[in-house]
Amino acid sequence: MTRATLLTITAPTDAEEATGPGFELADFDAPQVRVTDLAVTRGDGVFETVAVIHGHPQALEAHLARLAHSAELLELPHPAVDVWRAAVLAGIEDYRSRNAGDEELFAKLILTRGVEGTGRASGWLFVDQGEDFSAARLGIRVVTLDRGYRHDVAETSPWLLQGAKTLSYAINRAAQREAVRRGADDVIFVSSDGLALEGPTSNVVLLDGNTVVTPQTDQGILAGTTQAAVFEFFAARGFDTEYRHITADELTRADALWLVSSVRQAAPLTALDDQRFPVDAELTRELNEYLLARTS
Amino acid sequence: MTRATLLTITAPTDAEEATGPGFELADFDAPQVRVTDLAVTRGDGVFETVAVIHGHPQALEAHLARLAHSAELLELPHPAVDVWRAAVLAGIEDYRSRNAGDEELFAKLILTRGVEGTGRASGWLFVDQGEDFSAARLGIRVVTLDRGYRHDVAETSPWLLQGAKTLSYAINRAAQREAVRRGADDVIFVSSDGLALEGPTSNVVLLDGNTVVTPQTDQGILAGTTQAAVFEFFAARGFDTEYRHITADELTRADALWLVSSVRQAAPLTALDDQRFPVDAELTRELNEYLLARTS
Repeated sequence: MTRATLLTITAPTDAEEATGPGFELADFDAPQVRVTDLAVTRGDGVFETVAVIHGHPQALEAHLARLAHSAELLELPHPAVDVWRAAVLAGIEDYRSRNAGDEELFAKLILTRGVEGTGRASGWLFVDQGEDFSAARLGIRVVTLDRGYRHDVAETSPWLLQGAKTLSYAINRAAQREAVRRGADDVIFVSSDGLALEGPTSNVVLLDGNTVVTPQTDQGILAGTTQAAVFEFFAARGFDTEYRHITADELTRADALWLVSSVRQAAPLTALDDQRFPVDAELTRELNEYLLARTS
Repeated sequence: MTRATLLTITAPTDAEEATGPGFELADFDAPQVRVTDLAVTRGDGVFETVAVIHGHPQALEAHLARLAHSAELLELPHPAVDVWRAAVLAGIEDYRSRNAGDEELFAKLILTRGVEGTGRASGWLFVDQGEDFSAARLGIRVVTLDRGYRHDVAETSPWLLQGAKTLSYAINRAAQREAVRRGADDVIFVSSDGLALEGPTSNVVLLDGNTVVTPQTDQGILAGTTQAAVFEFFAARGFDTEYRHITADELTRADALWLVSSVRQAAPLTALDDQRFPVDAELTRELNEYLLARTS
């Protein structure tokens, strides 16, 4: 029995004429992608993962804006934002009409350069239940790994696509396997010139006294939709918030560290490499409650 | 009317039990890949492209060995080499039985980590007619672009997957778009510490007096199946051949340069960045004749 909802986006970019709503229900369990789609052969496309809590897609406009930004970096046509927005809502509605509706769900948006030679983009959206992240929200162990790039390659060498959320994620997956090999759960990437960047699928948030800091995004870092909400949470409690360069060394002197992302929300670090970190369990619980309560 | 031949590899790795030959004919024009295949969502897989000239797959054993090497770097199960070899031959036979058979064809092998959560790899192979590369074999214009990595990251940071031929090729595609933007046809990547590496889909071969040189492969460079044949060609004519580090600066002082790859074969450079290069048209013609005449 199919649980997930899959939609084919028939008009995924402004370059395709939409007939009807621009999307249609598809069979999640059946193949939908041609082998010659450039997503398969070249990882040539972009994606977003949106948390859906009690039926509400969180930070949907920010995710749609980031999808468009990633598409621009890959020189894909501009996504048909209205079509994608409507598809997310329709996908959630379909999923909840067929399943118990109160879980944490996610919606995944995939936009590709399409079948080679056709010049037509492909798009899919699926809605499914997320993993159970309750343990990760209590604490994760993290290792730092070299990303290999200087912090400024997004500016000097835009063809390296840093800052785009592309389907070419094999390196991120390999880094996560390396973390597991080292007895850890996740990764913070460090630039070749020693700056803390981001996780493979998350942003880094650091507490330093009364200031909450995240690496500034001109280093080819994905602007975090959840990280923005984390800053709202802390600002409302009187903390200062700051975007700046953070050296890898500064991480080791932090009062607390979190990896924050759309579906897992805020995961506090209990260890970074060989160093143990204290977790403020109450603060983190309140932070995740705040994040999960967002309805936009 | 379908021209290309597509095979689904039902037993793509040694982890799957083969029933029958381990592959079956599939409809090239129909979707074969699920949206949740990690090839689509993460570019998480490896591939090879084999030239098929007058029905002969060229350097097939070298391509199969490289597929296995790439799989190992990605910690995929070992490819079922006998299945893939038989599939290549069956795919070529099917294609030629339905189409005029004397063209230059190619066979593309795709091995992915499979549908997320199943733990089963996916595999496909298709055989189709190649592009017409006759113009490229007379001369191409090339630009050098920063790859962003030091030359030694394959050794220091294996999770960056340098030296694996992965499906995460969005950067290679972006680099080729950048070349076109600069009025060129192709790219030579340069390491952040100034060494010439390879093209997005080719190896660099340099002529320096009586010596033919290619960058040594401990720099995360794909070991070139065609480059090996190029060395055989030159060695038989009394040239010395050498694998070593080549600085980007040395490229500009070369007597001649080629980008060599499986399907395009040898493309001589008429220009590198703003510098024009002489092409020895006769030597290059003989080189491509030699390469195209290979029957193994």
